[in-house]
Amino acid sequence: MNGAGNLMDFLDEPFPDVSTYEDFHTIDWLREKSRDTDRHRKITSKSKESLWELIKSLLDAWSGWVVMLLIGLLSGTLAGVIDLAVDWMTDLKEGVCLSAFWYSHEQCCWTSNETTFDDRDKCPQWQKWAELMTGHAEGAGAYVLNYFLYILWALLFSFLAVSLVRVFAPYACGSGIPEIKTILSGFIIRGYLGKWTLLIKTVTLVLAVSSGLSLGKEGPLVHVACCCGNLFCSLFSKYSKNEGKRREVLSAAAAAGVSVAFGAPIGGVLFSLEEVSYYFPLKTLWRSFFAALVAAFTLRSINPFGNSRLVLFYVEYHTPWYMAELVPFILLGGLRRPLGDSLHPGQHRLVPAEEDHTAGKYPVLEVIAVTGITALLAYPNPYTRRSTSELISELFNDCGALESSQLCDYVNNPNMSRPVDDIPDRPAGPGVYNALWQLTLALIFKIVITIFTFGMKIPSGLFIPSMAVGAIAGRIGSGIAVEQMAYHHHDWIIFKNWSAACLGESHRRLEYIVPLMAAAVTSKWVADAFGKEGIYESHILLNGYPYLDVRDEFTHRTLATDVMRPRRNDPPLAVLTQDSTTVEDVETLIKDTDYNGFPVVVSRESERLIGFVQRRDLTLAIKNARQKQDGVVSSSVVYFTEDAPQLPASNPQPLKLRRILNLSPFTVTDHTPMETVVDIFRKLGLRQCLVTRSGRLLGIITKKDVLRHMAQMMNQDPESIMFN
Amino acid sequence: MNGAGNLMDFLDEPFPDVSTYEDFHTIDWLREKSRDTDRHRKITSKSKESLWELIKSLLDAWSGWVVMLLIGLLSGTLAGVIDLAVDWMTDLKEGVCLSAFWYSHEQCCWTSNETTFDDRDKCPQWQKWAELMTGHAEGAGAYVLNYFLYILWALLFSFLAVSLVRVFAPYACGSGIPEIKTILSGFIIRGYLGKWTLLIKTVTLVLAVSSGLSLGKEGPLVHVACCCGNLFCSLFSKYSKNEGKRREVLSAAAAAGVSVAFGAPIGGVLFSLEEVSYYFPLKTLWRSFFAALVAAFTLRSINPFGNSRLVLFYVEYHTPWYMAELVPFILLGGLRRPLGDSLHPGQHRLVPAEEDHTAGKYPVLEVIAVTGITALLAYPNPYTRRSTSELISELFNDCGALESSQLCDYVNNPNMSRPVDDIPDRPAGPGVYNALWQLTLALIFKIVITIFTFGMKIPSGLFIPSMAVGAIAGRIGSGIAVEQMAYHHHDWIIFKNWSAACLGESHRRLEYIVPLMAAAVTSKWVADAFGKEGIYESHILLNGYPYLDVRDEFTHRTLATDVMRPRRNDPPLAVLTQDSTTVEDVETLIKDTDYNGFPVVVSRESERLIGFVQRRDLTLAIKNARQKQDGVVSSSVVYFTEDAPQLPASNPQPLKLRRILNLSPFTVTDHTPMETVVDIFRKLGLRQCLVTRSGRLLGIITKKDVLRHMAQMMNQDPESIMFN
Repeated sequence: MNGAGNLMDFLDEPFPDVSTYEDFHTIDWLREKSRDTDRHRKITSKSKESLWELIKSLLDAWSGWVVMLLIGLLSGTLAGVIDLAVDWMTDLKEGVCLSAFWYSHEQCCWTSNETTFDDRDKCPQWQKWAELMTGHAEGAGAYVLNYFLYILWALLFSFLAVSLVRVFAPYACGSGIPEIKTILSGFIIRGYLGKWTLLIKTVTLVLAVSSGLSLGKEGPLVHVACCCGNLFCSLFSKYSKNEGKRREVLSAAAAAGVSVAFGAPIGGVLFSLEEVSYYFPLKTLWRSFFAALVAAFTLRSINPFGNSRLVLFYVEYHTPWYMAELVPFILLGGLRRPLGDSLHPGQHRLVPAEEDHTAGKYPVLEVIAVTGITALLAYPNPYTRRSTSELISELFNDCGALESSQLCDYVNNPNMSRPVDDIPDRPAGPGVYNALWQLTLALIFKIVITIFTFGMKIPSGLFIPSMAVGAIAGRIGSGIAVEQMAYHHHDWIIFKNWSAACLGESHRRLEYIVPLMAAAVTSKWVADAFGKEGIYESHILLNGYPYLDVRDEFTHRTLATDVMRPRRNDPPLAVLTQDSTTVEDVETLIKDTDYNGFPVVVSRESERLIGFVQRRDLTLAIKNARQKQDGVVSSSVVYFTEDAPQLPASNPQPLKLRRILNLSPFTVTDHTPMETVVDIFRKLGLRQCLVTRSGRLLGIITKKDVLRHMAQMMNQDPESIMFN
Repeated sequence: MNGAGNLMDFLDEPFPDVSTYEDFHTIDWLREKSRDTDRHRKITSKSKESLWELIKSLLDAWSGWVVMLLIGLLSGTLAGVIDLAVDWMTDLKEGVCLSAFWYSHEQCCWTSNETTFDDRDKCPQWQKWAELMTGHAEGAGAYVLNYFLYILWALLFSFLAVSLVRVFAPYACGSGIPEIKTILSGFIIRGYLGKWTLLIKTVTLVLAVSSGLSLGKEGPLVHVACCCGNLFCSLFSKYSKNEGKRREVLSAAAAAGVSVAFGAPIGGVLFSLEEVSYYFPLKTLWRSFFAALVAAFTLRSINPFGNSRLVLFYVEYHTPWYMAELVPFILLGGLRRPLGDSLHPGQHRLVPAEEDHTAGKYPVLEVIAVTGITALLAYPNPYTRRSTSELISELFNDCGALESSQLCDYVNNPNMSRPVDDIPDRPAGPGVYNALWQLTLALIFKIVITIFTFGMKIPSGLFIPSMAVGAIAGRIGSGIAVEQMAYHHHDWIIFKNWSAACLGESHRRLEYIVPLMAAAVTSKWVADAFGKEGIYESHILLNGYPYLDVRDEFTHRTLATDVMRPRRNDPPLAVLTQDSTTVEDVETLIKDTDYNGFPVVVSRESERLIGFVQRRDLTLAIKNARQKQDGVVSSSVVYFTEDAPQLPASNPQPLKLRRILNLSPFTVTDHTPMETVVDIFRKLGLRQCLVTRSGRLLGIITKKDVLRHMAQMMNQDPESIMFN
């Protein structure tokens, strides 16, 4: 912290390094960028002075890559540990491995010599609780005991999870994605990415997933990775002292998180691209790439046999697709939105409700109740008892020759030996119809229970449950229905005409892009028809975060003058003059208002704008001057001009504050269309913008004003935007 | 075009629809956006008036998707036709199909019944020229005759190509990518995407590729697709009358072009993302996606059997990779830049040279000479005789059991029957060493000839030749060398330690991402060390286009005041006053200067800025007023104020021009760091920006000024930026 004496010695530095941001405030991207450029220049010029400084500058240049490496290693490790722990604890609800209690069911039988190929899931070392306690593996008694213990374990896990979150880290609940998007776009939420959040979220995520609740670990994993990023930022002042640079690291950490959550390093980079493209230099993309790569690699090294973990669901495409199959693909794409929306209301209803109603008052009770009901209903149905990711894996299977699943119980016709890539030509057996019933029940159960699960005070992602709902619907709808239609009507032209065009192996990748893209585009059209915002955007809106979405197009015909403050009947704008305000005036202004900063004008008469001064800088500078600079009293005049006039000795000493004055505040004219203003705020990451007409200051527009105006124009409650 | 009378009736419309842009000028993105919003609002409000207007508004809303569909269909069709034509004409240099002369070699033998599986390339219907003309298929005479005719055909094709380009469409030469990037970023080059360019580029591309020159068709295909996009823009006034909206379509067309050129619909979308993210709404991305999809699908339908066309090089990964293989991958990544640079100097030397030296004076002769030398040297070597894409395909093959290629002549050890996915364990046979020699010669030949080929006045892409150089180097280096090293030293730990970690099928996709990413990241580091700009950026720089690259980081400590004009000793800025300039003054100003527009100030004394007026609007408005408005003479005073004062009847009639005044010109203060100014120009797509200090106008910064300043700071010639 510089004293006021120092302040005056460095009048040429445009931005002093004296201020940070308050909690729940928006950062100023341009300012952060400018500060980093200054820092960088200082290091570069120093590096020519000595070898030590040169080494320091090289270390500084490489620190970005070092941080990426550390993030990749830690988030990959955590993801791997979480995977292993979830496996073990999920199986713990059913039984225990006698040879080593820390083995999961799969590992237990994997290491056993007595496992046969036909029934890999059964081995004597793995014992269900009933068998272990009573010696009876079969029978109604054993079933009830297992059922009871299954529920008990689930309740224990979820109780631990919700208690830990409540006591140690309230920010650890939910998926965290909306907050991370808001933080990346330039908002401060202190502690959201802290060490406690990291620790508690990791532990409670394992507990919550293992308890069998209808939630996914993907969103929380991204949050965990971002916490890792924030942790490593504190190692380098380059990142910890600059909120803009910190967000470069966080965006790469988010990419690493997506990479380990979905097994998609490139997808991870794309996730963080949105913010990257506006605020960060392109090299950030390369670093994200690197972090995502290291994370994926680390995860693979830790958990090499858990193939369903890394590549989330590996789908083998054995057969080409047929034109007819596009129809259900497009239907599914169209259904995605309504299905998703059936999960939304839960959010809309529960999240605000839980702040003032029963569920919100007793979050622990809520979690216990939902866990109990989930376990009670899930156990009897084989498709809901297992973990959701196992369910999805089975649904994605196409029925090969060795498949023992109920879903593959087709009546095989021994007279026909068609090649693999031909139209399936088998009638369904009784097992398939049985499975259809169970799947339908599972679909209803999943939709209902997910609505109640989402929004509870535990770490929970929505991706896996949504995907499960989609996969069940897909398997019921297209997988079985279309196949049987094709069997019974295989002379229909729609099933035939593309057979000839099937190009064999070499086109597979492109082949599958077409139906996926068709589904994605349809889904997009339907989503547009239903309304624009996604689930994360609704959550952001509900919490009143100041998030300017890239997707919001502003097409109304309002002007800056309609949005700026002061409004028509408001008191005039709080401004400072360049050479006629006293220290006392400034102190009164600071006391009476809570604005983040004040415009400085030539005089109250001319109102010509010369700059903008931050509240925080002003407070600090006056405090320092009062303490350290002789002769600065309440009646001292504050000068923002380049030179203070020579005053007679009898007058109080003037206070020169040009150094803390931002001489390039952002301005627009009062006639500027709001469309342009929104664009400027979004692309340049502004906090506020001054409004002038022919050089005279008229008012100010803050990010909050912009967001409130946008909400108003979309007929939403403008008061929902709570932060600046 | 509105008369001046109308002009005054619509004082409330901020931007009149009266002006377009001059050739070789930069567009103003904010203005185009604003104009489109106005148009959109007009249509929306009209749509409530009648059913017909409602239908029109719906048609307008869907026109974007219609254009995308048309672009996808046409560019896919053209790509398919070009593929088929190139196949046929490439084979025509060697021989002809007797059963149907329009069949290529492959098609000819494909349809023949006498083809055996072992030698699919040989069938009696396909005859080489010597066999057809003399009856002798073998022998030195036949070889020489075939050699001679091969060269003759090549010369004929390339002569036709260069002549057509010269006579009908000079813009059809080169790859077109640098110009398309510049156009997409907001520059006008009339005729560059015209109908003639489309036609001639399509025809000459076929000729140039068929002639066997070392060039690729990928870049030109993107240009062709963009021409299609421009063609369909003219169907809808929404796109043809708004240069911003036109670029939305062009960016999607570029995506479709990349999609058909590389068989990568998603890659296509990523290509156009750079511009999309700044200037276009996100929905453009979806449309690009759609266009790319339709194009890929159309291409597949036209040319279903040409599997090497759609997915450019389909590589089947049979075996997992080993840690040791990362080394050559990383080396190759590191080599990419020096190899690429060895192709660059050719560009640096040839392109400016050809404008004043021999080669440039006689472009036809140059093409003929290079074609002759290429054909002469390429024919004897089997790896250069065939088309470059066939060569790359062969290089990517791993040696399966059935492979008859020389590259796969390994000494098989009958005692060992290892599984496919094990470390190759075979010593190389004599064929491999022979192939190594030929490949080395081919590598040198390709590098040298590509340097001379690039920059000639024919359509030519650089991707395929660069890829060929990389693939040859890769095959020589890692494919063969590492393999043999592994054979001779297979106890080395580096070849062993990862075998255990090989995860089988399910990880393949991720498996291959790791080495590719490692190579890409290394390549990036080396590129950074060599200097920042890529081949397209150098080309843009050479041509003096005003292209503000996203990647250029500006970190110098200059201020707006250092860049703005007028400079210290320049004459003062040409400005208009709001109520004291006469029509004659304005006309003199327009005649004496060539600026794109003029700032309007309150008075010359106060210099307070009130707006900016476009030169073109001013010229048109005065011309119209002189013709149609009574009493407007040279001594009439021009008023930019809201109300003109009531003048005595004896005074000449005033001319009110507030309607053409842009009341929200972009301003920065003179203290604004250039870093911020560059950011603003880049992200908002500005043409110019006014510089003020406490409300007084000081100067102006244009895009050209910014680019020249950036060039100066990077020690480049600032005069190289030629356009505004």
